[in-house]
Amino acid sequence: MPSISTPSKIAATKGYGAEVSVCGPTLQERQAAVGEVIKKTGATFVPPFDHINIILGQGTLALELEQQVKELTNGKSRLDAVITPCGGGGMLSGVATAMIGTGVQVFGAEPSYQGGDDCRRGLVEGKHITVVKTLTIADGLRTPVGAIPWTVISDSTKVRAVFAVTEEQIRQAMKLVVERMKIFIEPSAAVPVAAVLYNEEFRRLVQREAGRDGVWNVGVVLSGGNTTLEAMAKLFSGPKL
Amino acid sequence: MPSISTPSKIAATKGYGAEVSVCGPTLQERQAAVGEVIKKTGATFVPPFDHINIILGQGTLALELEQQVKELTNGKSRLDAVITPCGGGGMLSGVATAMIGTGVQVFGAEPSYQGGDDCRRGLVEGKHITVVKTLTIADGLRTPVGAIPWTVISDSTKVRAVFAVTEEQIRQAMKLVVERMKIFIEPSAAVPVAAVLYNEEFRRLVQREAGRDGVWNVGVVLSGGNTTLEAMAKLFSGPKL
Repeated sequence: MPSISTPSKIAATKGYGAEVSVCGPTLQERQAAVGEVIKKTGATFVPPFDHINIILGQGTLALELEQQVKELTNGKSRLDAVITPCGGGGMLSGVATAMIGTGVQVFGAEPSYQGGDDCRRGLVEGKHITVVKTLTIADGLRTPVGAIPWTVISDSTKVRAVFAVTEEQIRQAMKLVVERMKIFIEPSAAVPVAAVLYNEEFRRLVQREAGRDGVWNVGVVLSGGNTTLEAMAKLFSGPKL
Repeated sequence: MPSISTPSKIAATKGYGAEVSVCGPTLQERQAAVGEVIKKTGATFVPPFDHINIILGQGTLALELEQQVKELTNGKSRLDAVITPCGGGGMLSGVATAMIGTGVQVFGAEPSYQGGDDCRRGLVEGKHITVVKTLTIADGLRTPVGAIPWTVISDSTKVRAVFAVTEEQIRQAMKLVVERMKIFIEPSAAVPVAAVLYNEEFRRLVQREAGRDGVWNVGVVLSGGNTTLEAMAKLFSGPKL
């Protein structure tokens, strides 16, 4: 793990029995450290998003989500849409793949800060954007979309649209989820919540397309919770929202 | 509600359809405000803890806890003990009443700061302590134990013991629950967690009494989550724990 990782993430990983190697935070340092571990232990490299197995594995969350909706509503309701955060795009492309043929529409959500919405911009411009430099508070989503995820996400029959939200919208959505649902999420997880609640484009789309009752059942993926109370203190010690 | 109530608590209450009257924070101001609402609307007063119906109602959480343990372990495990926070004592005496005859031992937990452990001290001294002035961060537990709860809690066949924890232990337990379980609790809810993890007296008791496998299944009541990210920022913006 890069040395800047959240202490609670490192502690949790060790707590589950893993041996954690710490390295520098740049891509070069990380790749070098991975190479060394593989050379020393014969370990298998598991990429974070740009691999078909990772994409398919992440996509299984959508199957669980459908199952949970069925169970919680005794089969009376179904999802109309699912929205996930989009960083490297592994989860978004996996969910989109899982939902093929189901009629469930799939959306992504990104931070707009300092061009962090590379996926949304790429879809508008019709080309894959591969370099992004943003210091958005949604630090899990600073990565540009990977090559394989892009082949799925750029197919509008699989991913309908990707929405961008501001830093302030992320903070507000996060505050709502933490204080009212009592689920401790990191800023990245609040990004699709912010899109559903505050994005004007999403609101208009639902108004236009919602069926006879004017309601859409939207599954929102909260991923993840790797943050600390000290990090939250920095985000929320300013003026009241 | 007193004007110092957590904004998210007021917002949540209104969100569920309630009409919220705001009053001053002292006991006198609160009683006067309640009197006025009753006069105006004919409403029924529901006391926070010192009433037999409240005690019995809170006690039903212990029945749910037993049921959940049964379901989660397919009937293979049972509770050895339950520990709850203790402020006015309604929940603790209710849980103790529900567990009569089950063999499940019941414990309470309090903050020690500025004498906030009135219940524990009262049990040691063999008398009901009715006045407490503490500004512990566990603000839900600043109240002294009520008269009716005391009749249950002071019976050692019903409540085995009450443990006190420090402010720093409360902060550490809270950090652990929020960051690792991802449940956003208020400091009061972390008090029984702190007792289980850090109280020496509790540790020795378990060592002495745990059965053949040396393990106790302890149900810990997390109550509640009425706090804000700004309040957390104040608690955790100091030096790292």
